[in-house]
Amino acid sequence: MPTARPRLSQQLLAECAGTAALLCAVIGSGVMAERLAGGNTAVALLANTLATVWALYVLIETLGPVSGAHFNPLVTLVLWSKQPLAQREPARAATLFIVFQLLGAVLGAWLAHAMFDLPVLQTSAKLRTGSGQWLAEAVATAGLVLVILRAPAGKASALVASYIGAAYWFTASTSFANPAAVLGRMLSDSFAGIAPASAPGFVLAQCAGALAGLWLAGLFETSLESTL
Amino acid sequence: MPTARPRLSQQLLAECAGTAALLCAVIGSGVMAERLAGGNTAVALLANTLATVWALYVLIETLGPVSGAHFNPLVTLVLWSKQPLAQREPARAATLFIVFQLLGAVLGAWLAHAMFDLPVLQTSAKLRTGSGQWLAEAVATAGLVLVILRAPAGKASALVASYIGAAYWFTASTSFANPAAVLGRMLSDSFAGIAPASAPGFVLAQCAGALAGLWLAGLFETSLESTL
Amino acid sequence: MPTARPRLSQQLLAECAGTAALLCAVIGSGVMAERLAGGNTAVALLANTLATVWALYVLIETLGPVSGAHFNPLVTLVLWSKQPLAQREPARAATLFIVFQLLGAVLGAWLAHAMFDLPVLQTSAKLRTGSGQWLAEAVATAGLVLVILRAPAGKASALVASYIGAAYWFTASTSFANPAAVLGRMLSDSFAGIAPASAPGFVLAQCAGALAGLWLAGLFETSLESTL
Amino acid sequence: MPTARPRLSQQLLAECAGTAALLCAVIGSGVMAERLAGGNTAVALLANTLATVWALYVLIETLGPVSGAHFNPLVTLVLWSKQPLAQREPARAATLFIVFQLLGAVLGAWLAHAMFDLPVLQTSAKLRTGSGQWLAEAVATAGLVLVILRAPAGKASALVASYIGAAYWFTASTSFANPAAVLGRMLSDSFAGIAPASAPGFVLAQCAGALAGLWLAGLFETSLESTL
Repeated sequence: MPTARPRLSQQLLAECAGTAALLCAVIGSGVMAERLAGGNTAVALLANTLATVWALYVLIETLGPVSGAHFNPLVTLVLWSKQPLAQREPARAATLFIVFQLLGAVLGAWLAHAMFDLPVLQTSAKLRTGSGQWLAEAVATAGLVLVILRAPAGKASALVASYIGAAYWFTASTSFANPAAVLGRMLSDSFAGIAPASAPGFVLAQCAGALAGLWLAGLFETSLESTL
Repeated sequence: MPTARPRLSQQLLAECAGTAALLCAVIGSGVMAERLAGGNTAVALLANTLATVWALYVLIETLGPVSGAHFNPLVTLVLWSKQPLAQREPARAATLFIVFQLLGAVLGAWLAHAMFDLPVLQTSAKLRTGSGQWLAEAVATAGLVLVILRAPAGKASALVASYIGAAYWFTASTSFANPAAVLGRMLSDSFAGIAPASAPGFVLAQCAGALAGLWLAGLFETSLESTL
Repeated sequence: MPTARPRLSQQLLAECAGTAALLCAVIGSGVMAERLAGGNTAVALLANTLATVWALYVLIETLGPVSGAHFNPLVTLVLWSKQPLAQREPARAATLFIVFQLLGAVLGAWLAHAMFDLPVLQTSAKLRTGSGQWLAEAVATAGLVLVILRAPAGKASALVASYIGAAYWFTASTSFANPAAVLGRMLSDSFAGIAPASAPGFVLAQCAGALAGLWLAGLFETSLESTL
Repeated sequence: MPTARPRLSQQLLAECAGTAALLCAVIGSGVMAERLAGGNTAVALLANTLATVWALYVLIETLGPVSGAHFNPLVTLVLWSKQPLAQREPARAATLFIVFQLLGAVLGAWLAHAMFDLPVLQTSAKLRTGSGQWLAEAVATAGLVLVILRAPAGKASALVASYIGAAYWFTASTSFANPAAVLGRMLSDSFAGIAPASAPGFVLAQCAGALAGLWLAGLFETSLESTL
């Protein structure tokens, strides 16, 4: 195990490669599942869910020690609001994290397409809109922020993976909960895609959810002077 | 991690939010699964099961340190019979726990409906009755109480989640095992619902099961004077 | 957690209740899965597998500290061959373990039937025979013995559960690997059943497999004098 | 638990038996799943995936302390490039590891066939070829190498199993990622098979992927003199 602190360049590589791997897993397993499921969407989403859960667990465990394994601009911003990501120029570090996450999301979508012999450059035509979908994205993101801020030490990988596995099913939007995921999925006309026209609504709802999660997490914080 | 003891108000918020999240996960994933499964009820229940298992694991891990993560009036009563929940006015604390669990169950059902663009206010028409169902609920609740009372330290989250995952399938009632879950599901005319007329039978069977579980757990207790 | 050593009567209760719960989970989830799966046997076996995996994990974690959580006469015999189960009259203890496992298996089958409104007393008509099935049971039991004897401390619950989950699918017999399970399943004319005429072949193959597993485990044992 | 260092003969037995068990699990569960799934390939691959995940977890936990649980010539070569496998004649040890892995893969395929009453000697007719498939195998193997080299201590079993579970779905090739698996599956005309004509392309792509994984893992290594 590495004992020295990772360099910022290594952290950015981890965020880029991790987000690419996450999107590749989400989109690739969606393509595979849709091809094999013969129209049974529930079976396809089950396979998509399991692949995503396993991928998240592995990515957070293996890249967490490098960069914290955010893979999500809102997670970077929420954690940054609690504690600066770097000692020098923290705003620059957070900005770079987000840039490399967005870059990784695009590369991950393209890699999935290349593996499945699909045109690399695509745009999704799948509309995902309406108040139910937006409420679902807000709920999904609030939950994700709460899970991350309240995860006991060493359990974030299992908890985030399990949370997303549940949220794929209990939110009406299948829980994107991540603006980088929105970007990558916009570029894939497949099971996991989202039409560009639906993207702003999802991202706004995710931002609102992240704020709600941050506020809710604060309600559970304890301080030494507090007693009943 | 918080080091100070959580306030009662924080515990009640945890019980309310946790029970809401649990019911939202159970009902929401039921709606999603039924919509996607195209009539294959086994696939729908599989998805419903996995979402419930993951949600329970996450909720117990993240809210357990605040309130113990009961989310179930019978769990509150069973644990209270073993040890007072609070130093002052323990009966008041237990009563408040149960009130906030029931409130959370209702809010969780309503949140699921709002996300899935369903009428928020509903009542289930799904009759669940008969001696087999009641025996199943008694068995399910006895097992839950046994698992909670015998879980090794730090393993309650994984064990309760796994137990409910199994009990969704091996009990004829899909294992509600929780009067708060009965209340929330009564208010949802969906896959996970239960008609109000069937509720009293379920709750009575759960109470009987909780007592049986408490008695069985006592049989496994060891004391220093005991030898063969 | 109990600190005193459990009494033999508590151990026998644990073996009886644990084996009953295991058989109830196997048979009950098989009935539920077959009813819901609409003829898709793979989906039914998937649900049956998950319920069994979760039940085994929970039972071994919660009852292991009492009796070792054998729930299987061949496991009792294999472990007894390594180390006496009790300080006084170990043969009597092993015999009683097996008697209570067999009793529990019968009670578990009956409990499942009662929950699902089926006749309590049944006999399976499902023939499971032939050299492939017998080889499968021998392989399944050898693997189970190897897993138990080589499990790192504290991991037997997860490993045995995972092993059985895999073996449900990779052995042609769906891996009974347990004479008590054969007895309980003989008494259930359902998805998980086995005709009495097929039982002796299964049990003999399991015995052969247990011996093979014991022999194989010995090949991996290391002693201090051994070097390359 | 054994305290002495395992002998080379025990390590070779572990690599042979472990690779045999892995191939038996992959091929056997594929046969079972295809038989039961009634043409629903997604359900069949779900069952095949779960059996493989559980089998890998159990095999790495139980045989890891003996031989490191490689079960894969490329894993042996990658780890050997980092650290000699034996103090004396490390090249001979690595060669023997690989020979026994290949032997085990063949035996595992034959064992699966014998259990399922299929002709023991078979050759697959399933063509798996094209640039998408080769890219998929390179990605799958690079990911496997990264996971192994970056797994925190004690977590390789859960991480490798989870990774393969995800990669079964997100790679277009269902992620063989192992030349020994290619050999075993070549000898099975079933769900998990691969035609001999397709084998060289898969193995070459795996070798390229292993090198890429080794290079990528190097980018994440930290040393004490490194700072931004």
